[in-house]
Order: sequence, then structure tokens, then C-alpha cells
Amino acid sequence: MSHFQLQQASHEPVVLQEVPFYKPAGNECTLFEVAYRQQLPLLIKGPTGCGKTRFIAHMAARLGRPLYTVSCHDDMTAADLTGRYLLKGGETVWVDGPLTQAVRTGGICYLDEIVEARKDVTVVLHPLTDDRRILPLERTGEILKAPDGFMLVVSYNPGYQNILKSLKPSTRQRFVSISFDFAPLEAEVEIVSSESGLPVAQCVPLVNLGKRLRALKEVDLEEVVSTRLLVYCAILIKNGLDPFQAAETALVEPLCDDLDVKEGLLELIRATYG
Amino acid sequence: MSHFQLQQASHEPVVLQEVPFYKPAGNECTLFEVAYRQQLPLLIKGPTGCGKTRFIAHMAARLGRPLYTVSCHDDMTAADLTGRYLLKGGETVWVDGPLTQAVRTGGICYLDEIVEARKDVTVVLHPLTDDRRILPLERTGEILKAPDGFMLVVSYNPGYQNILKSLKPSTRQRFVSISFDFAPLEAEVEIVSSESGLPVAQCVPLVNLGKRLRALKEVDLEEVVSTRLLVYCAILIKNGLDPFQAAETALVEPLCDDLDVKEGLLELIRATYG
Amino acid sequence: MSHFQLQQASHEPVVLQEVPFYKPAGNECTLFEVAYRQQLPLLIKGPTGCGKTRFIAHMAARLGRPLYTVSCHDDMTAADLTGRYLLKGGETVWVDGPLTQAVRTGGICYLDEIVEARKDVTVVLHPLTDDRRILPLERTGEILKAPDGFMLVVSYNPGYQNILKSLKPSTRQRFVSISFDFAPLEAEVEIVSSESGLPVAQCVPLVNLGKRLRALKEVDLEEVVSTRLLVYCAILIKNGLDPFQAAETALVEPLCDDLDVKEGLLELIRATYG
Amino acid sequence: MSHFQLQQASHEPVVLQEVPFYKPAGNECTLFEVAYRQQLPLLIKGPTGCGKTRFIAHMAARLGRPLYTVSCHDDMTAADLTGRYLLKGGETVWVDGPLTQAVRTGGICYLDEIVEARKDVTVVLHPLTDDRRILPLERTGEILKAPDGFMLVVSYNPGYQNILKSLKPSTRQRFVSISFDFAPLEAEVEIVSSESGLPVAQCVPLVNLGKRLRALKEVDLEEVVSTRLLVYCAILIKNGLDPFQAAETALVEPLCDDLDVKEGLLELIRATYG
Amino acid sequence: MSHFQLQQASHEPVVLQEVPFYKPAGNECTLFEVAYRQQLPLLIKGPTGCGKTRFIAHMAARLGRPLYTVSCHDDMTAADLTGRYLLKGGETVWVDGPLTQAVRTGGICYLDEIVEARKDVTVVLHPLTDDRRILPLERTGEILKAPDGFMLVVSYNPGYQNILKSLKPSTRQRFVSISFDFAPLEAEVEIVSSESGLPVAQCVPLVNLGKRLRALKEVDLEEVVSTRLLVYCAILIKNGLDPFQAAETALVEPLCDDLDVKEGLLELIRATYG
Amino acid sequence: MSHFQLQQASHEPVVLQEVPFYKPAGNECTLFEVAYRQQLPLLIKGPTGCGKTRFIAHMAARLGRPLYTVSCHDDMTAADLTGRYLLKGGETVWVDGPLTQAVRTGGICYLDEIVEARKDVTVVLHPLTDDRRILPLERTGEILKAPDGFMLVVSYNPGYQNILKSLKPSTRQRFVSISFDFAPLEAEVEIVSSESGLPVAQCVPLVNLGKRLRALKEVDLEEVVSTRLLVYCAILIKNGLDPFQAAETALVEPLCDDLDVKEGLLELIRATYG
Repeated sequence: MSHFQLQQASHEPVVLQEVPFYKPAGNECTLFEVAYRQQLPLLIKGPTGCGKTRFIAHMAARLGRPLYTVSCHDDMTAADLTGRYLLKGGETVWVDGPLTQAVRTGGICYLDEIVEARKDVTVVLHPLTDDRRILPLERTGEILKAPDGFMLVVSYNPGYQNILKSLKPSTRQRFVSISFDFAPLEAEVEIVSSESGLPVAQCVPLVNLGKRLRALKEVDLEEVVSTRLLVYCAILIKNGLDPFQAAETALVEPLCDDLDVKEGLLELIRATYG
Repeated sequence: MSHFQLQQASHEPVVLQEVPFYKPAGNECTLFEVAYRQQLPLLIKGPTGCGKTRFIAHMAARLGRPLYTVSCHDDMTAADLTGRYLLKGGETVWVDGPLTQAVRTGGICYLDEIVEARKDVTVVLHPLTDDRRILPLERTGEILKAPDGFMLVVSYNPGYQNILKSLKPSTRQRFVSISFDFAPLEAEVEIVSSESGLPVAQCVPLVNLGKRLRALKEVDLEEVVSTRLLVYCAILIKNGLDPFQAAETALVEPLCDDLDVKEGLLELIRATYG
Repeated sequence: MSHFQLQQASHEPVVLQEVPFYKPAGNECTLFEVAYRQQLPLLIKGPTGCGKTRFIAHMAARLGRPLYTVSCHDDMTAADLTGRYLLKGGETVWVDGPLTQAVRTGGICYLDEIVEARKDVTVVLHPLTDDRRILPLERTGEILKAPDGFMLVVSYNPGYQNILKSLKPSTRQRFVSISFDFAPLEAEVEIVSSESGLPVAQCVPLVNLGKRLRALKEVDLEEVVSTRLLVYCAILIKNGLDPFQAAETALVEPLCDDLDVKEGLLELIRATYG
Repeated sequence: MSHFQLQQASHEPVVLQEVPFYKPAGNECTLFEVAYRQQLPLLIKGPTGCGKTRFIAHMAARLGRPLYTVSCHDDMTAADLTGRYLLKGGETVWVDGPLTQAVRTGGICYLDEIVEARKDVTVVLHPLTDDRRILPLERTGEILKAPDGFMLVVSYNPGYQNILKSLKPSTRQRFVSISFDFAPLEAEVEIVSSESGLPVAQCVPLVNLGKRLRALKEVDLEEVVSTRLLVYCAILIKNGLDPFQAAETALVEPLCDDLDVKEGLLELIRATYG
Repeated sequence: MSHFQLQQASHEPVVLQEVPFYKPAGNECTLFEVAYRQQLPLLIKGPTGCGKTRFIAHMAARLGRPLYTVSCHDDMTAADLTGRYLLKGGETVWVDGPLTQAVRTGGICYLDEIVEARKDVTVVLHPLTDDRRILPLERTGEILKAPDGFMLVVSYNPGYQNILKSLKPSTRQRFVSISFDFAPLEAEVEIVSSESGLPVAQCVPLVNLGKRLRALKEVDLEEVVSTRLLVYCAILIKNGLDPFQAAETALVEPLCDDLDVKEGLLELIRATYG
Repeated sequence: MSHFQLQQASHEPVVLQEVPFYKPAGNECTLFEVAYRQQLPLLIKGPTGCGKTRFIAHMAARLGRPLYTVSCHDDMTAADLTGRYLLKGGETVWVDGPLTQAVRTGGICYLDEIVEARKDVTVVLHPLTDDRRILPLERTGEILKAPDGFMLVVSYNPGYQNILKSLKPSTRQRFVSISFDFAPLEAEVEIVSSESGLPVAQCVPLVNLGKRLRALKEVDLEEVVSTRLLVYCAILIKNGLDPFQAAETALVEPLCDDLDVKEGLLELIRATYG
């Protein structure tokens, strides 16, 4: 089920041999390529599990560029991105972080959930996202000039109503940006079937159920059923689990703890698998 | 009373010779095994002391996989899971954390009370819980690919009404999930008797008392009497303590400090042992 | 006045030759011994200075086990309990903390005021308090199995109304528990006289005064006069201080700063020594 | 698209050979030069992306001074500005920070978004901004006297309504100050065309659209369309993207997530490109 | 003006040759001596500058014990009291803190403003303040037994209404305690005259003024005029300053910034020196 | 424009050859000298830019004492004042901080904006400000006795209404204190003219304008126009800038961002230069 090769060493460019499967929903591939060629940083917005990570892996492979993915969080420091000195054999050795590696090798650096990062992390990106395209490494005294192949891609989920955390406007202003959403019915059925091995005929009611569960979003849930959870459910069904139980395990329990909310979701599921 | 062998060295797979006793309540064993075979991460929800840890030890032994258990807390760092450099003989040596050990040896990594962990800890799990199944070790420059035998299991207790702490929806979405609860009367009697050595006839009123005390939950207590406390009480009775005093020591004092609440609980106990 | 020998080295079991004086108030000695033999962790609750520390020293000596006492506070880290690497002669050397020493030597580890400890500290105790009875030392890669002689005892004072701090229910559930209170009149007179050397006849009015001062608790004081303070007062009287002044110095000033509250306490004292 | 040379080594003065294009809006160039010659520190206020950074690069090149740019943030420490000791080959080596480099080489040090910096950072600037013009390096024991060529320039965006963060009055009092705003229509058209390569005739409606979008500022947006985003949009159009889609990608998505606000902006865009 | 010898080395007992001048207000000297002989820890309460520090220096010299004084504050760590490892010549060397020095040499350790200290600091004192009289040094693995000469003295100012900070009742309960206040008129005149060299006749109106200023306490000031400030004022007068100006400089400006409050104080001063 | 020599090495006393220009407003020079001769610590209060720093530089030079100036801030640690160990050539070397240097060389240590400092910093000053006049260096085990030439001077601006930060009364009580304010008209004209080189005739209307702007203080500004800003304005005028523009740049923009407040200030300026 994995489309990824193992990246073993840090400084050699690693390019995926095989382009991961991705089904475009609009002209996002064209836009990505123009941004890449014109050296514009890209911001992708969209809900969890709608295929942002897959899309970027797909484009990186198509463009023949190594991909450096970083999941951001609020304890990540700038050094986690740029690198740090480590003590080896009594001597300090500088070890590049993923951002620095991407700049040195002319790769694509993808920062997932960028709004989770602290300000000092996002500020590191500033000189890379204006016409200077440089990465100053204060610790080593280097100022790296990004080669043509380097591209910065960031993403976040605007669905979270996180008042405390948001991308600074002065950072957002440095990116062109597109919004993602879940694939339409037919496309999502194709994805679920191809990822799980469950026949298309069995995937249609499942994806339809997913769409109906998502329509309940406003009611009680922090987040809706992702394509990934539909794939999980399909895998459980394919491996012999009762579809109702599979749906409870993959679509209800991961999303909520409240008994009343659970019951509401289970009712919808019973209409399909009851 | 211990079913565990001593794990002495870090990198050699350690597998339990003896499968710990576990009495299934439903099809949780099947679900665990499907999730294991299909490489889906698993989230288990349930109250303290209802047998989650025992269940996972049981399944790990049945599947012949080494088990790495980590109790999460809010001062745990990502390095506690993945590993760190230590200075030995003037040279820095990398020491794997339990998650990295589980990935390297193809074992089961169990993170107990995952909601207690900080965000940087849960984010480390992300690339292990999608189709990449990789663990990037930024400090060593390695990107580990999880072998087939690796499985990630996490748990938490949804009964805590912790507004400040909850699992990020984007993390929850990466797991299939099941809910646990205390065993039904007969099964719990069997467990308490088998763990304490107290005859079944004496365990029946004790477990019945436990069930009645749990029914008081809504009133005043943060948490209900666990199966573990019933076992403790049975051990005290078996060793000659007065049953009323044993129940006070094992079922009342550990749960509350308030005199009025204590009195309410003691009244129920008097009905059984007074 | 000290019943303690000097513990000089870390890893050799140290056992008190002389059993410290302790006057039981109920069956707490039996309960302690059953818990010790059955390897159940013990939680002791009670006000400051009522004799918890003395009781544990007494039982440790009776059972012939070395005692490791730790006063918990909110800046204590898990490493303060388990141990840490220190740099010695250019080489890092692991130094066991008191909990690890207790596990290695099969001793009793007593954590005083456990509610003051941070969560990462209490979580370290979890695998020692279920049927695994193990202490994983992530830093050294060891997983220690507690020998039969090892026992964990914790205590706290439920009288503090500390809303921010409390023992997690999932931690409390791992202990059998007993409540302590001040000794009854006759017993407390015996303790005060034996500790201070003041004749019993002079201790009776003093302990009676202490009991009356405690009865004022609800009014204005955070905590009541402890047995220790009564012993201090008796020592001052025995050494020639005026009893009224001794009581002011040992029973009033240590407990409050407010002039009105002081005056209230002094009035009671005048009734005895005025 | 980059006007910058790579600064490779830390201590040699680096001066831009080519003066970056800058179109003055008033007498800001004269004022900058007087402040430079008279050794007065300069504070520049203005919205994101209105050309502050470009202006300073332009002046630094015109005056033949090396430029050291630092993006401030609230995790930046004073040591990030002044320098620190690093361990190299078993010996600690002092490495100058950008401010120290600017003082040593007589360059211009530009601190972008100074209000984001912590107090200890701004206080480091005090002895450089009064008649002493010194930089005490407590760690090395040096007190550097700034040469004539040294100039300190700071900037911030007063549009952010950040109650928690503001420049201390005692710091502000040390600077002469000017306010920047977006260029007038004709000048902004010239900038957008020159930066993107899109013909002036196509830039006029785009810049007009930008001005109209900025006029909506009061309504819903944290920040308005910058000149930089207009340049991005022009680049997308020049590379064949549909102008409406280019505007959505470069002018709408980077500025907001709210569907209603987006719709309001898109309506204005449809009037131009619909 | 200094009564103190220089303590140069850490581990040799240092005893003052000359007993600093101290004028007793009551039986505090007797009480100190009884507490010292009976090994009871002592807590001294009183306003700033009323002579607590001087009293302790006096008693330490009288008893022939070295004195270790520590001003507590909320960034002080337990290691500041007990000691720490320092790297010297590639080897770590343990350096005792002042508390450890006092224990090793059998001296008096005086912790000034103990309420400012963090909890981990006060908890370090616990085993020294019960009948164990031990100081466990976890870092070195030592458990020091305090010799007979060791005494612990702490102080704080109950006048501060610091809601956030207070001594834990469980810590207070470990001390006998006395309250200090400013000396009565005649004694304070003697102190001020002896410290400043100003003739007694000139000190009388000054001390009277100080008493009147203190009587205003309830009105507007956080703290009242200390004996130390009266000494400062006397020194200024003796050196030729105008008494009104001396009082403004030594008694008004140090106590408040508010113009109205200042005027109120100055009015009282004019009545004496106007 | 600088009156300061470069202090190159740390431990040799550095004394200014030339006494910086200072125009006394009252008897502050006498008071400073008495405090210096009598070894009383001095606290100076007053608004930003009224000449406090200049006054102290003047007095230090007059008294022939080296001056150590420290700008305090809330991330400054006690070690920044006293010193720290640094690793050099594999050996740790102690490096004195500015306070320690002042004590060792018998110089004047000036702590600017002392209220910004943390409590652990101000507490370090306590033993230097009573009759002990010692500086205990816990890290080195030294207790330094201040020589006669040592003097401690601190300052702060009481105009800031910082509720969170204030000098502890127990610290304030250790200083004699004087209040500073802006110089009267004639004196300020002389200062502005002498610092900027602008003829007196042109300085008179400028300083008058400054006085009028200060009278607006109550209305909207956090702080008023300082003498320093008037000097800046005079420099801009002398170098050919239009006086109105010079005043906008030096007197308005540095003080506020609000458009309405700016307009109010500009109106006053137009009355002089319009």
C-alpha cells in the first residue's frame, strides 16, 4: 500500500521512480507547475485526509524533484527545519534540517499544517519567499541561495476554528494559494476502490454513506469523515468484517466520544448497512 | 502475579512465551488481528482499569510480536519516543526510543493515555499512520520504513472531561477505533477470582458491590471502581482482612477524600458487608 | 532526637538497626504488612505532622527493608526519581535516583506529598503499580523487574484545597489507601512526652490545648497545630521558657500572620497558661 | 527575479554591485541619507508588501554599504543578533550575529517587524541608538564602537492591532521615523510590470483591481492586497492562467478562508475579469 | 560601616571575630539560643529593614558559628542551595551550595525572604527540619547528617500581601517562630546615632519623624520607612545636606512615585524640618 | 557626537579622560557625591531621554571612576550581571559580568530601567546595598567585598504605568533617591543647540514646541517628546530638511501610530512651522 521509497542518506537528491496515483479535481496540476517554474511559493488549504499530501507527492515525482515533508507542531523549533550542530567524536558537526536539505538539493519542501508552527519557524521562511530566495543559516554563517529547482509548499486546514493559531497575514501574503476539498462521488469511489481492493460496486454505497455523514458536519463533529477513513472501512469490509461493524469502527469511533452523537451517526449507517 | 518477562536489551525482539490471560467481551480480538494484518493503526477507548493494557499484552503474545508500552504524559517529548544522542566515552551514541525500537524490530508500540501527550509527540506518529508507514529520525538523518510486523496502538479514557486536552481530529482520523467497557458480571467475577485467588462464591458479592458503586458515578466521583481495585479488595479479604475494612481501603479511600461522599459509598458497602 | 542512620553509599541496602518508636492508632500496621506481602502499592492520606513519616520509618525497620524517602514538589522531574547520566572523567556515568535504588535493592520507596509532583513523575510509577511491577529506564535501555521486597508508598494531605493539583484518578486507582489523623489524647500525650522529655503531667494540659486549637480549624487557619509543633512547644517549656511564650512561639506564630487570628489563638492559650 | 548577491562569508563587507530598482514616493531617499550621514537610527512604518525591504536594499546599495537583514520574531534571543560561542574542535569559537557583523563592518542592520522581538532584544539596541553608539558584548567582554558607516534601521506594520506587543516608548524615542504606504496607481503599475514582465496595458486593470480590493479593508480582512501579490497575479497571467483564476489564486485565497468574504472579493474581481 | 569579614574559601568554617552591635527588644536572644541548643529550626517574621539580618549576624557571632546568608527569589533553584557539578579541566567537580556548606561545617544557614523561593527549594529543607536532620544530595548520592552546630533560620515579611506566594503550611509547621518589629523610640535613636555618627540630639526629631511617617502606613504606601532609611537620612544630614532635602531623598523618594502621596509625606516632614 | 572611549578589556579600570557635558538642574551633583563618599546606593527616577544616563556618565568621569552601564530587561538573568563559566580550550573559565567587574575595580555600576529586571537580578543587589557591601559569587565560591570606590546606581521611569512590574519595596528601601525631569526652557535650549550645532535662535522655537507637545501628555500618548528627540529634530533642520517635515519625522512619527493623535500633534507643529 506504500508508494514511497526509503530515503536513506540526507544530502543526495532522492527522486521517486514511480509517480504516485493522483486523480486531479481541477487545474491544480497546471497551477502547481506554473508556480514551480515561476518560483512562487504555494499554500494549499483543505480538510484532513482529502489528498493534499498525495497531490504533492504526485507533483514532486512528476517534476522529478526530491520531496522533503515536515509535519509542523507547536514545539517545533526553527532548528528542526534548518539544522543544528551535533557533537560527534569530540567535534561539532553541522547536520542540515529538511528545509536546508531541500534548498541545497533544489527539492520541494512541504510543511504540513503550517499554522501549528511557532512564529520563529514561519519567519525563517520569509527570505525564501520573496525575490531574494535565500536561507540565512546564522549558526553556520552561510547564506544559501535557493537553486531553480527549490519550491516551498505549505498547507493547513481552515476548518479548525483555532483562534489562538493562525498564519500571520504577512506570511500568507507571500504565497499563491488554492483550496482543496473531497473528490466528487465518482472520483472518490475510484480512489477508495483502488486503495482498498474492494470492488467498485461495494464502494459506491460506502462513499455515498461518507458523503451523507459529512453533510452532518455542522451538527456536532469537529471534523468530517475523510477519504482515508472510507479506505480503512473498505479494507475492513474486504477482510470479512460485518459492514455495519466496519463502519462503526472506521467512521464513528475515530470521530467522536459522545454517546448521543455516536447514535446519530449509527442511525445513518443503519440506513445503509442495517 | 506478573505475566511479564524482563526485557533486558533494547534491540533484540522480545516475545512473551506465555500468553497473558484475557477474556474477550466481543469480537475485539478479530478486529485487532485484521487491523494488524492490514497495517491499520488502532485506537482503543475505555475507562481506567477495564483491561485495555491486558488485552494488548494478550494480542501481542498471540501474534508473536514484541510489545513496547509507553505511558504518555504532558512532559514527554518526541525524543522520549524516538530516541536521543547520549555522550558515552567522549563520543555521542544514538539510543533508540521505544517507538523506534518497535519500528526497527517490527513490534507493537502501545501508547497509553495518548491524549496526555503533547502535540509534537502525536505529530511524530503521522507519517507512521498513513500509507508511507515511515519514521523520519531528523537527528540521525534516517528515514525508517516500518516492516510488516509493526503496529501502532494508542488508547485513552474518554471519561475524563479534559477540555484542554484532546486528540487532534487530524490525528484521530488516522486510526480505526473500538470502545472498551468493564466486563459483564460473570466475566468480571472470573477475572477477579483468577487474579486474586479468592473463591468465586466470595467474588460474586464483591463484584456486585463494584457494579453498584459504579452506578453511583454520576453523583460525585471523578472515576469509578476499576476491575483492578476489585482485585485488590479480593486480595485483602483473602489475606484475612475484615471485608468491610478491605472495601473501605480498596474501594473508598482510593477514590475520594470528601467525607460526605465517603459516607455515601460506605453505606452501600454496609449493605453488603455491614 | 534522630532515629536515623546515615546512608552513605547508594547501592547497598541500608536497614535501620533500631525500630523508630511508633504508637499504632488502629490496624494500620497489619494493613501495611498485608500490602507489603501481597505487593500492593499503598497511599496514605492525612494532615501535616500527624506521624505518617514516622509510621513508614517504623514499618520499614520492622520489615527489615531499606527506606528511600522523597519529598515531592512541582519542579521535581522524573529523572530526580529514576536517575540521570553525569559526566565524570570525560565519561558519562549513570547515577540511580531513589526510586531506582529502591527497585534495585528491594526497598521501600516513600513519595511524600505526591500531589505536588508533576504528571511525568506520577506516570513513571504506573508500570510499577500494576501486575508488571517493572521500571523502564528509557535512558539506559533497561527494564527493571521489582524484586519481592520492593514496595511503593505515597502520601498526601487532603486538607489542602488545591484545585490545580490533585492525583489523577487513573493513578489513585493503583493504590490501596488509608486515612490518618492525629492520635487520641492519651496517645498524643505519650508521644509528646517521649519526644520532648517533658513530664506527662505537663504534657496533658499542652496536648489538651492543642486539641482545642485544632477545633478552631474551620475559622481562619490553613492548617492546624501538628503533633510536631506540640513537641516543639514542650521542648521550649522543658528548657525554661515561659509556657505562654513557648506556646506563642511554637503554636501561634508558625500558623498565622493575621493579628486578629493570632489574638483568637492567644486567648485560648491564656485560658491554659495565662 | 533576484537582485541579491550571495553573501558567503561573515566578516567581509559585502556590497551589492547593482542598485535594486526603487521608485521613490516622496523625499524618503533624502531623509534616509541625512539620517545615515548624521548617524540617527531610522524607524520605518508601513503595511506588509509595500516596498520597505526593497527601499532599504536600494539605499544600502546606493550608499555602498553592506546590508544585514533580520526578520524578528518572538522566539529570537539577543544572542541571535549579537552572536554566540560555538564548540569547534574542542575549543569554543565566538561567531558574530548579524548585528555585530554590521557594527564590525560598518554596515546597515535592518530589523524587520521589530515589534515581534522580545524586550531583551530591543534593549540590546539601546547603547547603539544614543550618542555612545556602542555594542557591549558581555559574553566576549568586548565593547564595540560603531564606525561611521554603521546604521540601524527597524520597521513594523502599525496596521496590526496587537495589544500585547508594541515597541516600548523608551525604544521608539531613539529613532527618527517615516510612514510608508502603497505606491500611487501609475508607480505601482510600473513596479508590477517591471517585476512580472506583463505589459503595462494589462497591468493597469490589475492594479486598479488591487486598489479597489484595498478599499474593502475595513470590512473583513486582517490585511490588504500587497504589491507583491499583484506581481504574483501578473506572473500567473503572463504564464497563461485565466486572469480570473489567477486573481482568485493570488489575491483572494492568500488573504482569507471565510466563504462569505471570499465571495465579496470574487464579485469585485468578476467586475474586472468576469 | 561594615561589620563583616570577607569569606574567601568555601569549606573552612568562617566565624566573625567581632560581634556585630545588636540591641535586643525582648527575649529574642534567649529564644534563639534555646532553639540553637535544642536543634529547632527558627522562622523570623518582620518588616523590611527592622534589623532581622543584623540580629542573626549578632547571634551567629555570639554562638561562634559561621553564617551562610541566602537572599531567596523565585528564580532560585534547589541547586543554588545544595550545589552543582561544574566542569573543570575536563572533569566534573561538585561545588557545595551555601546550605550544604552550612551542613558540612555545622554553621547557621539563613534564608532571607523564604516566601520568594520556589517550592522545590523549600522542600529541600524538609528532611533538615524534622528529627532526621539530614540533607540528601541526590546528585552526589550522599545523605549528609547535620552536626549539632547546624541551625536553619528563615525569615519573611508578612506585610507583603502576596496572594500568589506564601509559605506552605506544611513547611511553616516545621519552625518555631517569632515576630520582629521596629525598635521603640529610644532604642532606634541609639541605633541611628551609632550607625550614622549623627549626635543623639539630632537623631531624636528624625526618629520621631520616622515613627509619624510609619503611622501613615494604612493610607497609601506599600511599605513604611525602615530603620535603614533613617540611618541613610542621618548620614546625609551629617554630611551637610539640608535636613528637609535629606528627608525627601532618603524617606520620601525611595517609598513612592505618586505626587499626591509624596505631598502628604512632605507635609509631615515640613512640620519637623520646614 | 560620542563622549565615550572604547572599553576593550574587561578587568582594567577604564576612566573617561574627558568629562561629558552636563548642565545641573539643582543640587543633584552634590547629592551624588555625598552618596558616593558615604557608600549609599542611589536610585534615580525620571522620564525617558531627560538626561539620566548623561548625568551618570558626567559624575563617573568627575569622580574618576570607571562606569559599567547595563540596560535591564525581563530576560536578563543574574548571571548576566555577575558572570558565568565559559568553555575555553577544554577548560571552563570564569568571565566576570559588569556588576562583578565594577565591584572588583571599584567602579560605578549603573543599572538602567531596573524595574524591567527579574527578581533574581534585584536580589543579587541586596548584599551590596546593606552594610555588608559584599557580592557573593555562588558559582565561584567567592564572596567579594566592595572597595570604597564602588557605587551602585539604578534608575527607572515612574511614568510607565506597569502594574505587573515594580521595584520590590524591600529593594527600594535600600537606596537614597532623587527625581529627574526635563530641563527648564533656557537650559534645554542650550543642550539642544550644543548637541545639534543648530544656532540658539532656531532652537528656541523648537524647544518651545517641545514643551507644548509635552503639555498634551495627558491626552493620548504613552510618553512625551524627549530632549533627545528635540536634538534629532534640530540635527535634521540643520542638515537642510524642511522644519515641518523634520518635526513630523522626529517628534510625531516616533511617538504614535494613530492618525487622529498624529493630526493633533501636527496642528501644534503647524502653529510653529506651518
